[in-house]
Amino acid sequence: MKIGIAGLGLIGGSLGLDFRSLGHEVLGVSRRPETCEQAIGLGVVDRASTDWSLLATAEVIFLCTPLAAIKPTVLQLLPHLAPETVLTDVGSVKASVVEEIAPLWHNFVGGHPMAGRAESGLEAAQPNLFVGAAYVLTPIADTPAAAVNCVEDLVRPLQTRIYHCQPAAHDRAVAMISHLPVMTSASLIAACMAEPDDAVLKLAQTLASSGFRDTSRVGGGNPELGVMMARYNQQELLRSLQAYRAQLDQFMALIEQADWAALEQRLQQTHAARPEFL
Amino acid sequence: MKIGIAGLGLIGGSLGLDFRSLGHEVLGVSRRPETCEQAIGLGVVDRASTDWSLLATAEVIFLCTPLAAIKPTVLQLLPHLAPETVLTDVGSVKASVVEEIAPLWHNFVGGHPMAGRAESGLEAAQPNLFVGAAYVLTPIADTPAAAVNCVEDLVRPLQTRIYHCQPAAHDRAVAMISHLPVMTSASLIAACMAEPDDAVLKLAQTLASSGFRDTSRVGGGNPELGVMMARYNQQELLRSLQAYRAQLDQFMALIEQADWAALEQRLQQTHAARPEFL
Repeated sequence: MKIGIAGLGLIGGSLGLDFRSLGHEVLGVSRRPETCEQAIGLGVVDRASTDWSLLATAEVIFLCTPLAAIKPTVLQLLPHLAPETVLTDVGSVKASVVEEIAPLWHNFVGGHPMAGRAESGLEAAQPNLFVGAAYVLTPIADTPAAAVNCVEDLVRPLQTRIYHCQPAAHDRAVAMISHLPVMTSASLIAACMAEPDDAVLKLAQTLASSGFRDTSRVGGGNPELGVMMARYNQQELLRSLQAYRAQLDQFMALIEQADWAALEQRLQQTHAARPEFL
Repeated sequence: MKIGIAGLGLIGGSLGLDFRSLGHEVLGVSRRPETCEQAIGLGVVDRASTDWSLLATAEVIFLCTPLAAIKPTVLQLLPHLAPETVLTDVGSVKASVVEEIAPLWHNFVGGHPMAGRAESGLEAAQPNLFVGAAYVLTPIADTPAAAVNCVEDLVRPLQTRIYHCQPAAHDRAVAMISHLPVMTSASLIAACMAEPDDAVLKLAQTLASSGFRDTSRVGGGNPELGVMMARYNQQELLRSLQAYRAQLDQFMALIEQADWAALEQRLQQTHAARPEFL
């Protein structure tokens, strides 16, 4: 199949590598000519261009730009598309993307491959990035079944676990397990940074070990990505932050009241619940 | 040297293994006869007993019981000790332990080897558990220098990194980087458990990946240990929870106000600060 990739970063590049190795023809578009050259050099695409018309003959186009660029990209692509071309995106938020793009293009399927790396950009692209990863598709009532099947048939051979859900349910779930942890983890680092006693701060930095390392990891991650999550999933993130603060307040009250029996019960519940998320 | 170990769990057992392999004679006391037999079988001690008098000839005794049992253990030991015997503990909180034990025994040095495993108990004991780990000693003004040197000379060959600080500074620092993360992490799991929409909860459980796994790890750990931290470091833990909630509220306000520039600046600060804790 002839596959287009708009946006040659970590996800677009990794998709290109996998699709080519499965025998598809991959056409890539990037704003930057150097990225196009690099993509050809890395074997990520068969052909690349800064010109959207390159994708005119693609049967399916994966929109792999940052969230903010998805709609502008689609508006640029529209004049070049045949009516049967399938568009799908890889954005980590779905309701706002589907609301924006579905009215512009009937054959659009919202998608979210839940794979990533700490590194970003085309240099970080790698084969088999999606093996074992969840790949969420968020078709709505009038999304053509053929378009959904087409995307599924392409991403299933990457050994992804395909799930279907409503865009709003996706955003609520990822707010809880992906976007909320970034903010709770960043708050942990910020709380430590705010320690007024410099000797204690230095001691804390010296003594921090695996517990702090793990709990602070996503809060010390890519700042731009954190902002994008908050910006495009603002309401669901706020909702989960409020739920979180209510729980935090309960833990604080139990500790303040020295209600150790109740605290132990709560910690037994979280201990028992965690494996269900793994 | 003849070393006593009171309390044969993960830490006591691991110390015994290392001390024996360094050529010391290790005597262990446990409340349970089966634990004594097991300790001898595992090579953790040379001799073991449920009778405190076994430790009468030990030159140094490591108190390796849970925090709540340290003072009762010392009261049981006192009748058997020679005046020059050095006592040291391995509790993860120091101010309350030092306040309780220093008046009972002059030759006492508060200590905290910052190593552990997810598993607990004697079965989890292993050689070289302390290699590269911080070992904090918290002598006070009238702690004899000879007692401090004696403990240092024993734990340095375990390849620990030895630090000295005041008991209160220790408790404040570990509240920040060790006890606070347990509560923020448990609150994350609790917030997800509280999701009222069962379909969203199921989806979240399905989609949770490495970010959630790392951020929730310590909050899903040993409940008894979490309660002990809170119980024996209550004031410092509450102080760090309050500092944390102030930061969380600031993040929530920025997201509510859609102040993306300020949010990005905050996330850049946490991104930059995290490596100083690793």
